[in-house]
Amino acid sequence: MKPRLLSGDRITGKLHLGHYVGSLKKRVELQHKYDCFVLLADVQALTTHYEKPEIVSENLRNVAMDYLACGIDPNQSTLYIQSMIPEIAELTVYFSMFVTVNSLRHNPTIKSEATERGYTQMYYGFLGYPVSQAADIAICKAELIPVGEDQLPHIEQTCKIIRRFHQLYAPVFPEPQALISETPRLLGLDGSSKMSKGLNNAILLDSTCDEVSEKIQRAKTDPARIQKHDPGHPEICTVYSYHQAFSPELASEIYDSCSQGTIGCKDCKKKIADRINALLDPMRDRRDTFSRNAKYVDEILIAGTQRARSAAKETMQEVREAMKINYFS
Amino acid sequence: MKPRLLSGDRITGKLHLGHYVGSLKKRVELQHKYDCFVLLADVQALTTHYEKPEIVSENLRNVAMDYLACGIDPNQSTLYIQSMIPEIAELTVYFSMFVTVNSLRHNPTIKSEATERGYTQMYYGFLGYPVSQAADIAICKAELIPVGEDQLPHIEQTCKIIRRFHQLYAPVFPEPQALISETPRLLGLDGSSKMSKGLNNAILLDSTCDEVSEKIQRAKTDPARIQKHDPGHPEICTVYSYHQAFSPELASEIYDSCSQGTIGCKDCKKKIADRINALLDPMRDRRDTFSRNAKYVDEILIAGTQRARSAAKETMQEVREAMKINYFS
Repeated sequence: MKPRLLSGDRITGKLHLGHYVGSLKKRVELQHKYDCFVLLADVQALTTHYEKPEIVSENLRNVAMDYLACGIDPNQSTLYIQSMIPEIAELTVYFSMFVTVNSLRHNPTIKSEATERGYTQMYYGFLGYPVSQAADIAICKAELIPVGEDQLPHIEQTCKIIRRFHQLYAPVFPEPQALISETPRLLGLDGSSKMSKGLNNAILLDSTCDEVSEKIQRAKTDPARIQKHDPGHPEICTVYSYHQAFSPELASEIYDSCSQGTIGCKDCKKKIADRINALLDPMRDRRDTFSRNAKYVDEILIAGTQRARSAAKETMQEVREAMKINYFS
Repeated sequence: MKPRLLSGDRITGKLHLGHYVGSLKKRVELQHKYDCFVLLADVQALTTHYEKPEIVSENLRNVAMDYLACGIDPNQSTLYIQSMIPEIAELTVYFSMFVTVNSLRHNPTIKSEATERGYTQMYYGFLGYPVSQAADIAICKAELIPVGEDQLPHIEQTCKIIRRFHQLYAPVFPEPQALISETPRLLGLDGSSKMSKGLNNAILLDSTCDEVSEKIQRAKTDPARIQKHDPGHPEICTVYSYHQAFSPELASEIYDSCSQGTIGCKDCKKKIADRINALLDPMRDRRDTFSRNAKYVDEILIAGTQRARSAAKETMQEVREAMKINYFS
């Protein structure tokens, strides 16, 4: 029995290289060691996208395809759809009863996210999404959650909720642990913020070779560098940061050539575009295979959701017993 | 097709005469005219009783029995259990996305209830119970909700939520209307507050004849009246208020006899105890019949819950279509 690990993404658009570097790569490695549950978080996406639900529905299969293309293996990992597990909503309701509004208001991630999104009003569902996340984790009895540092408050809140549940009723859930990764943040092509589809500075995982080359060509470099022989400042160059992310073994060579003005930006960009395309090539092959059989992708999602749901049903049965509301058993 | 009417009670204890006068009597009459859904609100009860879930589980069948004893006819009305309709939790989650925290904080009923309960902390689930109530109403497409004046803010919030849903997605629900009744508030035996099990001033619907007589004997009367011939002040007498509630046709006679000192408190109390017992007698008969067949009561609850659940499933299917998250249909 491998320990269960939960990861997932909010379904708000196709995935890009930032997702790959930040988490997908790691997930592909982890699936051999853990019983990986991969949540397509459409409900959580709707919490911020309730006015544009079509964004969620249009991208559900895109994200599933991105996962499969990356190498998430449906025979190793369980891909499932959040909105199709009503037990998550049920458990959220029970958890909500003993979580104070203040503990949510003071959750630093909620606060900074609300600011980032420019919310002038706090929505009830948004305020409570750490409670839903606790339910996501608890319902499948996940033991490990790979997260970045910024997500730690959520895992702590989940543990608090689980401990309180156990104190009030009976032990049902494992206490999940954060599997903290360095989660390198990939810069966007504009070099000024992290890669994000919304900022239009991303290289999508489903890009063609030409799209990758074109996008890399417009990536921000050291603005002081006009001629090839001008000495560059790789530490402020977006393209250099991509070399660090995608070809770390060659990064120091690039650093030196750039600093010494022995490699031009054009060549440097070509090198990294080739490298990224080499990374994406096997993904393109897998994507081709899967996209030729769209029904198979649906089957993967349906089978994964069924598996996750039966785990969720079992957990809810235990929750009802612990809370003494299993009236007819 | 009779219009659907939703009523129900939080499951926090056995029902008493206050419930009967305030709502059950009306519901028994209404069941011939409407398609009555009667919700045993165990989840909502847990919102305030999460620390004592056994109170909920111990009383679920008691309340069901009170309903049946009162004359709620399982062939006319659908009795069902809230926690067994996960679709309510699902719909609550979707509604939560577009309800602001402030609109809940400013709900006057939430405010006064939180004060009454002496809450120093606001719990997330408690704050959001008007959203769950909106889901209770919407999930079964109820058109009419019998309520007292104090519950009007909840119906208004429900209508707002439903209108917003329709504006964001597509029309799915009828807009429910409040069926405002005078809902006479029955005084407790202490004469100082409304009848309530928690205040130990209630006559339970399952009381024996002797229990009724004993309880009425300790009901607060006009303290100025020492001797039978002392003129009484029925307008401040609890027992007189019971005459008004349970034998209105005799109330003016009692008023005069009390004011003129021609009837003593003892006789007056005997009269009302007899009257209440006459009201409870047919309930006792029905209770006897049902309690001899506990399995039948369970069958009623299971069948009602199944009926309500299939209505809820249909509604959620429409909700998913409206929100475009019915991925595989």
